[in-house]
Amino acid sequence: MQETVIINDVGPRDGLQNQPGILTTAERIQLIRGLIAAGVRNIEAGSFVSPRAVPAMMDTDKVLAGVGSIDDTCLTVLIPNMKGYELATVAGAKSVSMVAYGSDSMAEKNAGMSRATAERITGEIMQRASSDGVRVSATIAVAFECPFEGPVDMAVVQKLCGRLLDIGVDEVVLADTIGAANPKQVSKLIASLVNQYGADRLGCHFHDTRAMGLANVYAALESGIMKFDTSIAGLGGCPFAPGASGNVATEDVVMMLEQMDYATGIDLGRLMKVSALARELTGTAPGGRAAPWIERSFKRAS
Amino acid sequence: MQETVIINDVGPRDGLQNQPGILTTAERIQLIRGLIAAGVRNIEAGSFVSPRAVPAMMDTDKVLAGVGSIDDTCLTVLIPNMKGYELATVAGAKSVSMVAYGSDSMAEKNAGMSRATAERITGEIMQRASSDGVRVSATIAVAFECPFEGPVDMAVVQKLCGRLLDIGVDEVVLADTIGAANPKQVSKLIASLVNQYGADRLGCHFHDTRAMGLANVYAALESGIMKFDTSIAGLGGCPFAPGASGNVATEDVVMMLEQMDYATGIDLGRLMKVSALARELTGTAPGGRAAPWIERSFKRAS
Repeated sequence: MQETVIINDVGPRDGLQNQPGILTTAERIQLIRGLIAAGVRNIEAGSFVSPRAVPAMMDTDKVLAGVGSIDDTCLTVLIPNMKGYELATVAGAKSVSMVAYGSDSMAEKNAGMSRATAERITGEIMQRASSDGVRVSATIAVAFECPFEGPVDMAVVQKLCGRLLDIGVDEVVLADTIGAANPKQVSKLIASLVNQYGADRLGCHFHDTRAMGLANVYAALESGIMKFDTSIAGLGGCPFAPGASGNVATEDVVMMLEQMDYATGIDLGRLMKVSALARELTGTAPGGRAAPWIERSFKRAS
Repeated sequence: MQETVIINDVGPRDGLQNQPGILTTAERIQLIRGLIAAGVRNIEAGSFVSPRAVPAMMDTDKVLAGVGSIDDTCLTVLIPNMKGYELATVAGAKSVSMVAYGSDSMAEKNAGMSRATAERITGEIMQRASSDGVRVSATIAVAFECPFEGPVDMAVVQKLCGRLLDIGVDEVVLADTIGAANPKQVSKLIASLVNQYGADRLGCHFHDTRAMGLANVYAALESGIMKFDTSIAGLGGCPFAPGASGNVATEDVVMMLEQMDYATGIDLGRLMKVSALARELTGTAPGGRAAPWIERSFKRAS
């Protein structure tokens, strides 16, 4: 009996917002539909933030409408505040994602507010969402290291994670926003969180900046995590975090999980076609690091 | 008190013999000296095999003579048989490396002999080396998966490893020759070997073909392994193993180990210069996957 690992593809949001080019609404819909067709059941589909600040995420309402509601598929949208929450729910979003912070500097640079304010806003939205029946995911950005403040105190993240779970968020995602974490550090923090809070409502989000993306996924998995943010074709980064490069590629993670005999529900062959699409549409997506191998293996098999 | 991990750079042998171009003796010496200057204390410096089969390794005797004997530095040369052993020791080699095999098909393709024959030859050489005071390392090729036979039976590798240790080899290196292993598999095999034989005389050798190189290093490290083969600039592969690409890059492994607070004795800044040299000399070395990040970080620091 295979255990199932949940893959949340953040390419259509975290990925696309960090590419130099801007995709059309139709292209964004095509990418999301491709992911769904490949078996991805959790997708970060866009965000409701200022189109001036993040033009690539403009018209996320049209993207949601274009994709439509699909059984067993959870489309999440990122929101920065109550206004974003309202726009998202008006557009039909059933799942929203908020960002909390491991450091004040990152909160200021990314959202122009203190950590405490970001957390208070998450609490207010959680209350609304709870009565609206909307799912809430909270990401702790720079949970391991901050580009401005250096390594983040584990105790800060442990307590913040506890408070977010206490107010009832459906999921806390520990994010290595700048790809600075190493697997030993991941293992230490994540094992402590799983030990304290259980793994059911925890997820992880890694970047591959220092080539440790898959090593960190493995370390988190060994610590009990069964939910990962990944990004098709390794799209991504963070424009406000110096040194951040792409998210760990969905195809690399799915390949590794498959080889370790986990179920993901994702068809790797179809996923590679979506990776090719992402590379074609953006012209800049790096593609998964194992892509040449995976492509050869499918060529041999066919 | 930091624990020390031993890095054995196999770039000048396993790396160079798999590049399309052939370096001059002077260039090979320059590369090895660069590694030594960066603090690498274990280097696979060349091989004594047929120059017709592997022209890039011709004149390894001149390479050894050119580098000379350097305190605390172990230069190992690969030998396929007794003739190679004799040539190596005449050239002054104090450490030789032999290959044993996890599968018969790989033994046939790589060495034109059966697994049993390869093992018998290793035994004969071990006897000679023992009375000559020469160090012997034995690599088990395709210890995880064979490109011709698929996954390799763990019991076969466990027993082979035990027999090699029994005859007195100084080290058994478990090699994922084609970069097919996943970290769960690594953890399972390596933990069993460490449990049975202790970690002192065991090492690991990973390729990054499927982007799992660092994840596998981490999994082996967590299982107790403290010695790794790596290759400067990710040079390498195996001409007789379809699908094999570069060894895990020395700079990536050293960076990860440093960040996990292990000592390697290697200066990462200097190592990056050797990586640049390897890329320049070969024109084909991929460079470590974390190289862009490491280079940026040294630029910021200087």
